[in-house]
Amino acid sequence: MSAFAFAGDHRDGLARAGRLQLPHGIVHTPAFMPVGTRGAVKGLSVEMLEQLGAEILLANTYHLHLRPGDEVIARAGGLHRFIGWDHPILTDSGGYQVFSLAGRRALTEEGVVFRSHIDGQRCRLTPESAVDIQARLGPDIAMMLDECPSWPAPADEVEAAMTRTLRWARRGRDRFLAVAAGGPLEVRPSTPGQAQFGIVQGGTYQHLRDRSVAGTLEVGFEGYAIGGLSVGEPTGVMYEIVAHTAAQLPDDRPRYLMGSGMPDDLVESVARGIDLFDCVLPTRNARNGQLFTRQGPLNIKNARYAEDFGPIDPDCGCWTCRRHSRAYLRYLYLAGEMLASTLNTLHNLYFYLDTMRLMRKAIEFNSFERFRREFLDAYSRRQSA
Amino acid sequence: MSAFAFAGDHRDGLARAGRLQLPHGIVHTPAFMPVGTRGAVKGLSVEMLEQLGAEILLANTYHLHLRPGDEVIARAGGLHRFIGWDHPILTDSGGYQVFSLAGRRALTEEGVVFRSHIDGQRCRLTPESAVDIQARLGPDIAMMLDECPSWPAPADEVEAAMTRTLRWARRGRDRFLAVAAGGPLEVRPSTPGQAQFGIVQGGTYQHLRDRSVAGTLEVGFEGYAIGGLSVGEPTGVMYEIVAHTAAQLPDDRPRYLMGSGMPDDLVESVARGIDLFDCVLPTRNARNGQLFTRQGPLNIKNARYAEDFGPIDPDCGCWTCRRHSRAYLRYLYLAGEMLASTLNTLHNLYFYLDTMRLMRKAIEFNSFERFRREFLDAYSRRQSA
Repeated sequence: MSAFAFAGDHRDGLARAGRLQLPHGIVHTPAFMPVGTRGAVKGLSVEMLEQLGAEILLANTYHLHLRPGDEVIARAGGLHRFIGWDHPILTDSGGYQVFSLAGRRALTEEGVVFRSHIDGQRCRLTPESAVDIQARLGPDIAMMLDECPSWPAPADEVEAAMTRTLRWARRGRDRFLAVAAGGPLEVRPSTPGQAQFGIVQGGTYQHLRDRSVAGTLEVGFEGYAIGGLSVGEPTGVMYEIVAHTAAQLPDDRPRYLMGSGMPDDLVESVARGIDLFDCVLPTRNARNGQLFTRQGPLNIKNARYAEDFGPIDPDCGCWTCRRHSRAYLRYLYLAGEMLASTLNTLHNLYFYLDTMRLMRKAIEFNSFERFRREFLDAYSRRQSA
Repeated sequence: MSAFAFAGDHRDGLARAGRLQLPHGIVHTPAFMPVGTRGAVKGLSVEMLEQLGAEILLANTYHLHLRPGDEVIARAGGLHRFIGWDHPILTDSGGYQVFSLAGRRALTEEGVVFRSHIDGQRCRLTPESAVDIQARLGPDIAMMLDECPSWPAPADEVEAAMTRTLRWARRGRDRFLAVAAGGPLEVRPSTPGQAQFGIVQGGTYQHLRDRSVAGTLEVGFEGYAIGGLSVGEPTGVMYEIVAHTAAQLPDDRPRYLMGSGMPDDLVESVARGIDLFDCVLPTRNARNGQLFTRQGPLNIKNARYAEDFGPIDPDCGCWTCRRHSRAYLRYLYLAGEMLASTLNTLHNLYFYLDTMRLMRKAIEFNSFERFRREFLDAYSRRQSA
């Protein structure tokens, strides 16, 4: 019945190169998911995303539920049809946005009541409704509703959020299985064979992560995400928690590190056994003029590029680098031309997706450690200018 | 020496289908030039423009002179290299923008002194400097500097602007020939074989148009533009002046109607012997949600499209129509996603360029009158909703 399967084809140390078989196609892992919050990656057409080699997009349940509404999208035939992308999609559960974007909200054991950031309308999200909304949207992978505490937070708060997340995991999974079995008549899944991922919480406390992993595995999902990281904690702490948590997740299931990260975070997390990533950095920073290269980010606004007629990165094969100069990109940015966002986003996403391709190849050739060392030697987080 | 040539391959009534051989390639006429004011068509990459079949772009001398500056563009190797488009480009002379955009300006026989709309800097544009700037920019076609009076204006004002335009034509042509011959050492043309077009003025007064044509032909240019129309006069008056003026222009030279127009204006002007067009309508209106179809424009913001899952135009072969629904485009527009501008612009430009293709074919098959009748029967300027 389920179109979901994960095959770990190659191992190199803890790094894994695999294939995720989903209703709308295969995703080669480790994979990066470009973020199309509202059903569009800002500035890029789906054709461009295909040309970039993106195999899976991330979209946001919260935004799409509020506008245009999951009922409308269901009537359109599901999210894939609605946005014109017939490859895999993952949607988050909406919880993170409720906590970061919505107006006054009230969190209870039942769920969360909040006001829409668009029109102030009163909305409710529960572990069950998050499942129903995502059944209507019809992504290939739906995320369970979790509670993500801010950082830093005392252990008792993080523990409370983690244990509530475990109870929500059970409720969300029960609802998911009922919907998939054709149970609730009011919910017709737009994508048969949808997978559901559980989310491990527990902040930076290893003992809480241990309990969260055990409880989430007991519920059982098609894949497992590590949530609650990249929220401000030091990088070293994040890597430790990733390593500690990933090691306890089942070998034959995909592992998704939510919301991370910088290019070196991707490499370091793959080294610790992560398969899936999403992050707004390559797209958002592109719109602010920050461009990624093998040596680190550069700021295209800088005056030093005013007459630099070379490409962003001479080693980059992306369409922007093959056709346009730093001088032109700087000019477009300063002139406020929207093409600046498009060309910069193309480059940054190419860089991210190419880095994933290089990692997959390195794992397949058992040379991941060398790739990792060379990448980290060349890459500096400090913006060159 | 000159890479410029115009061959009128087919005639059908007054309509002409020809080929314009320019330094950067051939333009099949009648042709529409997408407007890339500041060296970019808003929201579209040059690859998209190539895929749309655009053969020539228009860029604005005024904007590029102020930013990034024609000296910078010359050092980049010219406008084609700077913007990454190696097909033909036409630049206007900057005069129109000086009159419509610049701050306080003083018009004399010598030229016009104005303040930049960007930083208030004092700038000067003369018939000679317009030539020099365009020599550095290096478009395939440079326009002479003219004076375009507003509409309505009394005959004596229009006459004064027309006679000054004639004097400027002589000065501009002399400078152009000197630069092309390697004369002024301070100006090195970025594109050898550049063509220069003269501009006929005279408003809506036929006797002034007659004098302007005669004087402009006496100076002699590679092609001739009809300026000073589409500035508010009734459509019927515009068509009359186009017919009256085009009939007096040499048969073996391209004729360019500046700044027009609506889709039916293109058809009616081709019927009167026009070969070249530019207009911001398809691009600007796309960004405001107005989409062109064979039946007329529609407003994608309209609530009636909220759950209309069909394409903008079922008969349209453009990429937006093949992949996206009215409902999705309306949603993107209302959500403020920049992809709305890109997809809408793709469609509108496809419609304009496709209409030109259909006209060329109709002329070649001697069926232009039938095409014209069917087009005008189907097309209504009234926005359907």
